[in-house]
Order: sequence, then C-alpha cells, then structure tokens
Amino acid sequence: MNRRQFTKLALWGTSAASLFGTARVNATAQKASDISSRAEKAHQDFMNLEGIKMQGTEQVAMLMYPGFTAMDLVGPQYMFTSMMGAKVHLVSSANDLTPVKCDTGIIITPTATQNDLPENLDILFIPGSAQGVLDAMRDEKFVAFIKEKGARSKYVTSVCTGSLLLGKAGLLKGKKATSHWVTLDLLTKFGALPVKERVAWDGNVITGGGVTAGIDFGLEVVAALRGRKYAETLQLMAEYNPHPPFDVGSPEKADPVVKKFLTEMFEPFRTGILETIAKRS
Amino acid sequence: MNRRQFTKLALWGTSAASLFGTARVNATAQKASDISSRAEKAHQDFMNLEGIKMQGTEQVAMLMYPGFTAMDLVGPQYMFTSMMGAKVHLVSSANDLTPVKCDTGIIITPTATQNDLPENLDILFIPGSAQGVLDAMRDEKFVAFIKEKGARSKYVTSVCTGSLLLGKAGLLKGKKATSHWVTLDLLTKFGALPVKERVAWDGNVITGGGVTAGIDFGLEVVAALRGRKYAETLQLMAEYNPHPPFDVGSPEKADPVVKKFLTEMFEPFRTGILETIAKRS
Repeated sequence: MNRRQFTKLALWGTSAASLFGTARVNATAQKASDISSRAEKAHQDFMNLEGIKMQGTEQVAMLMYPGFTAMDLVGPQYMFTSMMGAKVHLVSSANDLTPVKCDTGIIITPTATQNDLPENLDILFIPGSAQGVLDAMRDEKFVAFIKEKGARSKYVTSVCTGSLLLGKAGLLKGKKATSHWVTLDLLTKFGALPVKERVAWDGNVITGGGVTAGIDFGLEVVAALRGRKYAETLQLMAEYNPHPPFDVGSPEKADPVVKKFLTEMFEPFRTGILETIAKRS
Repeated sequence: MNRRQFTKLALWGTSAASLFGTARVNATAQKASDISSRAEKAHQDFMNLEGIKMQGTEQVAMLMYPGFTAMDLVGPQYMFTSMMGAKVHLVSSANDLTPVKCDTGIIITPTATQNDLPENLDILFIPGSAQGVLDAMRDEKFVAFIKEKGARSKYVTSVCTGSLLLGKAGLLKGKKATSHWVTLDLLTKFGALPVKERVAWDGNVITGGGVTAGIDFGLEVVAALRGRKYAETLQLMAEYNPHPPFDVGSPEKADPVVKKFLTEMFEPFRTGILETIAKRS
C-alpha cells in the first residue's frame, strides 16, 4: 500500500470522527508499511462500490436551545460527522458559546456561534423537545435566525417537534412534513401537509418523526449525499440492527391505556403550541 | 382531579425530564383545576397497569472519558432519566467537572465527580468508542475506579466496546457478555463468554451491542426496574418504531465488501486492545 492509499484509508475517522476514531488508531498503532495488502484490497473494493462519494465539503449547522432533546440531535450528528470533509457545527439559540442544557440534563458546549457560520449551509438541522421547543418558538430572534438561515440552506431539516420551529419560521408552507406523533396534526397550522412517515422528504425539506427517528433520518440523508453504500457502512458501524424489546413504538401499536396517558399528558403542551401560533405567525 | 393526583401526573417530567418536559408544561400552561376528568381517568388507568413502579430512588453513574461515543450514552441516558426519582450522574474519567469531548466532537459537562457519588450505586454504565476506549483501558486510575465502584453496584453495565473496560476491570469473569461486533470475540481474553445478543444479561452484568443497541439496552433495564408498561411508555414517547433505510446493521446482513472494509480498518484497533490486555491484566 502506498502512502496515498494509506492516507485515504486513514481519512475514515479523522474528519469522520465517529467512524470509531479509527484513523488515529491506524496512524498510531501501526505504520503505513505494516498495513497488509489484504487491507489495501478491502479498501480498493470498497472505493469501487457504486455511488460512493468519499470526500465532501458539506457545511452543517445543528441548532441547540435550552431544553432540547439530546437524543434527537446525537443520532444525526453521529451520521453527519462521519461524512469525510463535512463540517458539523453545534450552534446555540443564544448565539454564544455558553453550554446548553438539554431536557434530560446533558450539558453540551456549542462549537460555533450563529455569526461564525458560513453564509450558505448545506444542512440546517433542528432537534425537538416539549417545553424547550415551546420556549424556542417564542424566541423571536431565534425564529428570525432560522428563517434567514433556512433560506440559505440547501436542506432544511428537523427531527421530532423540531418541525414546529421550521413551521414557525415559515419554512414548511405547502411542504409534506412529519413530527412527533403527538404534534403531527398541528403542522397544518403552518400550511404544511402532515405525513405519517418515519422520514418525510419534500423538495429541500427533510423531517424525521419522534426522537429515535433521528437515526433513520441521518442514514437517509447520508445516503442521499454520499451514496447508499456509504450510509450502509455507517449503519454497520453503528450496528443499527434494532431489536426493540416490545413492539409498541407507534400510537397504532401501543397499549391504548399508555397512549391515552401520554395523549392527555401532552394536551397542555399542544394547547401551548396553538396559543403560540395564534399570537403571531 | 385533586392536588395530589395532579402532582402525581405532573411528576412525569420533573424528575423524568426526558418525558418531553411535560410537567413544566402542565404546571405553567394549565392550572390543576383545568385538568379535565378525562386526564384524571387516563392517569388512573395507567397507574393501575400491572407492574408499574412510578417512583424510585435509583442511583446511576454514567461514565465518560475522552473520545467516548456520545450515541452509546445518550440513548440509555434518555431512558434512565425518565425513571421518576432516579438520580443519573454523568461522571468523567478525570474525576473532575471539566467538559469531556466525545469522538464525534460533542463536548459534555460532567454533573458529578467520582468522589461526589454515593458509596453504592444501582447502575454503573460505561459507553464505548475505539481510540477512546483504548486510552481509557490504559488509564490505571480509571480502571481501578471502575473495579472498585463496580463491586458496589447492583448492576454493572455497558454498551458497545464499553464492555472492554468492564473486562479490563475484572468485572466480566465467567459472565456472558456482548460488545460491538468488531470486538465481540476479544471478550474471551477477560474470561467472559461472548454472546451474539443485542442485550446480554448474566447476573448483575448487562451489556449491549454496538452503538445503537443502547436504546434497546435502556428499555430493557427500565422494564426490569420499573415494569414493562413503564418501559413501553418510554418507547412510545421516544417513538421507537425503527425503520432502518437498509437491512444491513449486522455483519451477517451487511454487504461483504463493506464488512471487509470495516474489519480491515479496525484490525489495528484490535491489535491495540490485545497489546493492552497483554501488558497487565
């Protein structure tokens, strides 16, 4: 294996950090000369797979706001950071680098301010939550930022109730979109067409369902940008061969008592959203 | 609905922060008197489901180390923090509150030092990674802490290559355990019995497979501690009705070219683990 080929191999994991940090392992634990011809062949065969785009320059901004759901963001972030050459920014609604506390108590430090971002983005991404998203919808500066940046993004995307923020910013008009099952029907209030899909695509708008849908969403986006086989590699890396202990992950499949409990619990949240929409649109 | 009943309902989401932050919504958007009798009935019906344990006092420590995989931790953290009354601590290998950077660049602030933890834990949890876990296995102080705290934990748990750290700390001897598919066979080096399961249970040891297995792992643990219907509620909350875009999430199902590529890429990582085990056990 020559140096150029080794560099290629080692690149999986430097820019693609989540690819298990392998590049550093390759670089430190083993010299280029030790890499076997078997590894070289495996790499060549991989590169020859149809549609693989190894390198890119995508600019991705993933927005955070107080009380957002970390799980909504971390799945897609795993996928996006695995696109070699892509830049993935974590950006706070407060437009500073103060750590942001999510609804389960995880505190995450932003990596860029809104002003640090390039003028044009490839992906604008917004995670969901409950109280957090309600507060964020009432943050006029933040909504204005989403509106302005969304107009300059190749793809405008969300997971879970993040789509409510896209809607509030006027980015869902006439678009098919999805959301958490609790809030799906509310998307009509923004002129969107709610669709019951795990991941909904319409033009430049890509929206995922509730919380864990972020993993499926992330893989679909990577497949679109880097080729199906690239996404398949991430899926095997993340061992995404789900085996839910129960088959109750949608309102249709859930125990009606459980569904009713959650529906009633979220009724005040839905009321809050409707009030927020009514106030100013 | 009387005040006591409302308080019960509102508790979903105060201690159970990830339950969509609903309590705050309930508390702020609507007064107790506004909660309809329909909501009261839904709550009563839920509480009457078999085996539900609403309140608890679990002490959970989730360990972080430089380069850990955030996705391994965030899925289970979503589930654990949803157990009302449980305390979930994020703890750094450095035994301080300095933010820890994960392998995809997410920077997370610990919530407790090792010294802050109660003497006995209900759950000790360790996430995986590649280079990060290798470095952590070589951190003698950290391994000693895992060993000592593991002996005082009701459950000793991991996701992905986190099981290598459990093994290094001597906590897997004679135990059935699992890991990321790349490292599964290496568990024998710690005297463990590798099993190809999404989540492996053996006595007080619970280990999950690679990365995304953390979601299945978290739900199984919550079901064991709080009852199946409690876990089902979380599953519906997280809309965990997975729909992977491809069916390639295990080495058996993956494209052989993709599998070979990853296998060769991780060979130096495996070599590093074997060297680390050989040095001192």
